[in-house]
Amino acid sequence: MGNESGIGIVKTQYYTFAEPPHELILASGEKLGPITLAYETYGELNEDKSNVILISHAFSGDAHVAGYHEGDKKAGWWDSMIGQGKAFDTKKYFIICANVIGGCKGSTGPSSINPKTGKRYALSFPFITIADMINAQKELLDYLDIKQLLCVAGGSMGGMQVLQWVALYPDMVRSAIPIATTLKHSPQQIAFDEVGRQAIMADADWRGGDYYDHGQPEKGLAVARMIGHITYMSDQSMEQKFSRRLKDEKYSFDFKPDFEVEGYLRSRSDVFVERFDANTYLYMTKAMDYFDLSGNNLISTGKTIGTRFLILSFKSDWLYPIYQSLEIVRRLRMRHVDTTYCEIQSTYGHDAFLLEVDEQTRLITHFLKNVYKKKGE
Amino acid sequence: MGNESGIGIVKTQYYTFAEPPHELILASGEKLGPITLAYETYGELNEDKSNVILISHAFSGDAHVAGYHEGDKKAGWWDSMIGQGKAFDTKKYFIICANVIGGCKGSTGPSSINPKTGKRYALSFPFITIADMINAQKELLDYLDIKQLLCVAGGSMGGMQVLQWVALYPDMVRSAIPIATTLKHSPQQIAFDEVGRQAIMADADWRGGDYYDHGQPEKGLAVARMIGHITYMSDQSMEQKFSRRLKDEKYSFDFKPDFEVEGYLRSRSDVFVERFDANTYLYMTKAMDYFDLSGNNLISTGKTIGTRFLILSFKSDWLYPIYQSLEIVRRLRMRHVDTTYCEIQSTYGHDAFLLEVDEQTRLITHFLKNVYKKKGE
Repeated sequence: MGNESGIGIVKTQYYTFAEPPHELILASGEKLGPITLAYETYGELNEDKSNVILISHAFSGDAHVAGYHEGDKKAGWWDSMIGQGKAFDTKKYFIICANVIGGCKGSTGPSSINPKTGKRYALSFPFITIADMINAQKELLDYLDIKQLLCVAGGSMGGMQVLQWVALYPDMVRSAIPIATTLKHSPQQIAFDEVGRQAIMADADWRGGDYYDHGQPEKGLAVARMIGHITYMSDQSMEQKFSRRLKDEKYSFDFKPDFEVEGYLRSRSDVFVERFDANTYLYMTKAMDYFDLSGNNLISTGKTIGTRFLILSFKSDWLYPIYQSLEIVRRLRMRHVDTTYCEIQSTYGHDAFLLEVDEQTRLITHFLKNVYKKKGE
Repeated sequence: MGNESGIGIVKTQYYTFAEPPHELILASGEKLGPITLAYETYGELNEDKSNVILISHAFSGDAHVAGYHEGDKKAGWWDSMIGQGKAFDTKKYFIICANVIGGCKGSTGPSSINPKTGKRYALSFPFITIADMINAQKELLDYLDIKQLLCVAGGSMGGMQVLQWVALYPDMVRSAIPIATTLKHSPQQIAFDEVGRQAIMADADWRGGDYYDHGQPEKGLAVARMIGHITYMSDQSMEQKFSRRLKDEKYSFDFKPDFEVEGYLRSRSDVFVERFDANTYLYMTKAMDYFDLSGNNLISTGKTIGTRFLILSFKSDWLYPIYQSLEIVRRLRMRHVDTTYCEIQSTYGHDAFLLEVDEQTRLITHFLKNVYKKKGE
């Protein structure tokens, strides 16, 4: 994985819209406004605005997809894929990534101050769906005066956003790259999300969501994240990374972490608790569970779409198994949509969309070149 | 599944041993005593005591494997497999099942009163290994004057006990049926156990294990059990049982359970919290994580064993995947042990060992008949 994006220092930008009385009407019927979206851009917008790529982030991601923030040592979450000469080449394309609404990384979410009350929204924040996220991003593109996207790409919940873009605004989307994702959560995926939510809500420090003056429900949120981490890896990648190696020479005969894998889960979840809002965890997982573009929900009956698809899945991903990607492929081909599918032979599990840089780079570079060229023909 | 064992009403019996100063020395080096084992028996011991089958229970099981307790409507946990004409046929065999030490179903465990203090052990209870469980069961067999077992059988943690019996007392065990089990937990299995433990210990009601005067850490224990339930089922069996069916007609846009699978997890874990001690959860999972009969730990170097094996695994079991059973087979065959292996094409996941009655019955009936006959030849 390359760590040098060539992008250098970037700054998050903010756009605020839906000021009352022009609030955004959500799928639940509730209204939300004002809404701020945190976003970043990389590369240069070309003259006819035909080189715009929107990157959608996963559940715990943010707008900072590439480059470095001033003073930071860590690059954005998909820096390996975005930059000069990379899969999403900033020499050619203009890249946008926005934190979703409901998030906790600069966009309006449950931890934001509700201007009507002067207090944090907490659970008074309305329910958010993936469609609501896309409608908010559409407002950002309108503000930037962008009429069409060369591509929308993302993995996991980012892939759901890609599909939702096509469902809502197919004429705006020239190509789509949904990675390691699904048309709808299976009961097993819902179950894992629900257990994470229960872990958070079981923590006395959650206080019905009103914890902002007291600190996060750290223990519950840590348990939720540990469950997540197990599902993001594969049996094989955990074996390769940890096997049964002990932290010390022998068993402690105590409830302290004996195995390296236990220490890893604890330390990773401690980091997560520092950076991620527990209520956003609840809202985001529910948005994913509600998401359902099966049947004719992806492309409405009678509609023909010109969007070209590249769909990627990973052999060892058991959280978003390949059969779910194949179901997207099947749906698209039945509707005569130009669809390329590739199953990547990774052992990394669901995390592969963040780690398998080389193969994704080859596939995406080629796909984007073809889509971009077509416009000029 | 048959619900009629033909066994009728049974009563749990109790045997107490290791009275100080003759305490049991545990793998940790600590001592434990007195120890009570709760156990049940079914069928009749024959004259030469050659028809004894020991059933080992799984993590949350108990001694009540078949028949009915007075007033109960629900039969024992493997009643479908034990009784007249069933896999473990009580017309022919004498069946014993004992609750493990560390358990909470009548055997000495962390919720028992420590006679030295007059208080519950809680976390002052010593660490228990699978080997300690077997050494305690050996004391019970000595008391019953049983020198040899026709068979030891069990699934999951019960299968670990089967393997441990062979490791410790190979000459006592004529045949062994480890089902849906492993020689050692993988890091993924350890990780799932650790998250369950963290969920319990994160609950303020856990009180460092000293909750007995206040009530269980219900929320944490429920979260742990929900994680367990997901791992016991398969993606496919959850799809068949729940799909995305809603409890009500439409989404609640609330954090109440929307999907049937969510309601199922909550109601099943509520039942579990009523019947299972949280500290036993901690001790049992740690015993499984410490268990490791890989390498020459199952059969020590130079030793030849006469035990015959029937090993069963289930295609959709992703908690104890078939590769783990195949590793047991490989180890045994390398040591020239008579080993039959069968992979059952079930969709039930790990729960299959409790649910796939017909195929297990055919395989076990035939296997036991052969082993039992051999003695007479």
